[in-house]
Amino acid sequence: MVAADNLQKMPETATFNLVAYLKERQKLCDTALDTCMPVIYPETIYESMRYSLLAGGKRVRPILCLATCEMMGGTVEMAMPTACAVEMIHTMSLIHDDLPAMDNDDYRRGRLTNHKVYGDDIAILAGDGLLAFAFELVATQTPENVPRDKVLQVIARLGRALGAAGLVGGQVVDLESEGKSDISLETLNFIHNHKTAALLEACVVCGGILAGASTEDVQRLTRYSQNIGLAFQIIDDILDVTATQEQLGKTAGKDLVAKKVTYPSLWGIEQSRAKAQQLIESACAELEPFGNLAQPLQAIAHFIVNRNN
Amino acid sequence: MVAADNLQKMPETATFNLVAYLKERQKLCDTALDTCMPVIYPETIYESMRYSLLAGGKRVRPILCLATCEMMGGTVEMAMPTACAVEMIHTMSLIHDDLPAMDNDDYRRGRLTNHKVYGDDIAILAGDGLLAFAFELVATQTPENVPRDKVLQVIARLGRALGAAGLVGGQVVDLESEGKSDISLETLNFIHNHKTAALLEACVVCGGILAGASTEDVQRLTRYSQNIGLAFQIIDDILDVTATQEQLGKTAGKDLVAKKVTYPSLWGIEQSRAKAQQLIESACAELEPFGNLAQPLQAIAHFIVNRNN
Repeated sequence: MVAADNLQKMPETATFNLVAYLKERQKLCDTALDTCMPVIYPETIYESMRYSLLAGGKRVRPILCLATCEMMGGTVEMAMPTACAVEMIHTMSLIHDDLPAMDNDDYRRGRLTNHKVYGDDIAILAGDGLLAFAFELVATQTPENVPRDKVLQVIARLGRALGAAGLVGGQVVDLESEGKSDISLETLNFIHNHKTAALLEACVVCGGILAGASTEDVQRLTRYSQNIGLAFQIIDDILDVTATQEQLGKTAGKDLVAKKVTYPSLWGIEQSRAKAQQLIESACAELEPFGNLAQPLQAIAHFIVNRNN
Repeated sequence: MVAADNLQKMPETATFNLVAYLKERQKLCDTALDTCMPVIYPETIYESMRYSLLAGGKRVRPILCLATCEMMGGTVEMAMPTACAVEMIHTMSLIHDDLPAMDNDDYRRGRLTNHKVYGDDIAILAGDGLLAFAFELVATQTPENVPRDKVLQVIARLGRALGAAGLVGGQVVDLESEGKSDISLETLNFIHNHKTAALLEACVVCGGILAGASTEDVQRLTRYSQNIGLAFQIIDDILDVTATQEQLGKTAGKDLVAKKVTYPSLWGIEQSRAKAQQLIESACAELEPFGNLAQPLQAIAHFIVNRNN
């Protein structure tokens, strides 16, 4: 309840224009992503990577990375290569998840999925290429005013968030749970902590590390991001039930068709929504020591539960 | 011809036991690879990654990395995380290349390919997981006596060797060339410089960088590795024609069946073999300044043209 009190004391909704902030940041990220990957020979692979990377996502992950870096006293420039890298890793995971061998999805962000346009072979390679480029970008483009050991910490966290201890591990358990109706809450939490929350956590924590955050602050950032990560997934599950394909830009009602166990299927929609709200309040409570500087991260947390796509 | 003279002056075959050296180094690498990746939950993904990673490859790439680091005055410990990483990247490329959506191969290193055992979905994720782990390993496990900016240079080179400017780019042009009988020597060189030579170059050059090699030495190492990289591919093409499946541990005669343009198909087998020999001599000439310390790298170069699998 600390969080709720805190929110009442800080009228951030009155003084902070989230819509304008997100729009401006999204544009910054889009430009950086567009610029860092020109099309050269062999064109097919660059076009395929760019097709998915520049498909107009909300850029929640890179924006979280930039916002955390700034909150902790760093600059946008310090965090931009890492911000681009997290979006590349996220995009790579979408391209591979959508393959016929995995979730077999035809639509993503309102357009045909990568393999429907370029074929399965190029889609697999586009994912691999994005992943390789993500690490190269952080290693070569992070400005010199960030200590080199901090850059290595960021690379280590990105690798961990992406690999078998993160995204990949979550996806494996998700695949193994398909068609089973007796999935426990523990397993469901494992899936989402790894598939969704791990990368969101890396975005936030890496932004902090680049700015030189203390161990205590890194712990606060970790708790903030784990809470918003789980809330993000609960809302995703709710939207799969309540939103239309047009709103989502991807196939709706998939979980029901696949008979997937989801938070709404375990708790019902109302209780799921309440749980997400509670997680967001706990997340925001972690930001209290940062005062007004935390406005963007608080507003983004609330945006996550209130979004409709 | 400098190389040939040089070889005559240095009786390394008499004093240097390559077979014993490779055996000892292979064991070191196998142990390090085995140790760095224990099986935890979710077991499937770790088992799948280990299935291909510990399938008994020759470990040419990690051994090149260790040998170069030692030649330049570094230690095995300095280079071991990078050596493991290059083997993970190589293994990941094999797993993804073997998929039905790509080369559709059932056998590799004398065993069923990863997707034949674990399914396409897990095989895709095992590749992604190996790749992520490779970067995490270099970032977290390279000992403190290697300057942090050198570790970042290594990560940047690994990313580049793997991505669209390396392995992935080579694979794309290879896929686009399939079934075409009018592939130019220029295109064939592009494919192999990217598919094979780029990662071999990274192995050698990164080993040097970790040991603090000068810019001039890095250039020598680059030329050495580019020459052995191309020779390696020429021999691979020759073996595809002349060796049996048993010798190769993978499907033989694939290039002929796929009507692929190869070096033997352009030059004939004898001329291809002569070209490979010439490349190895040029490679060894680059190592002249390093004297007896270069014995392992020289012997490995000769081993590459004389292998039969």
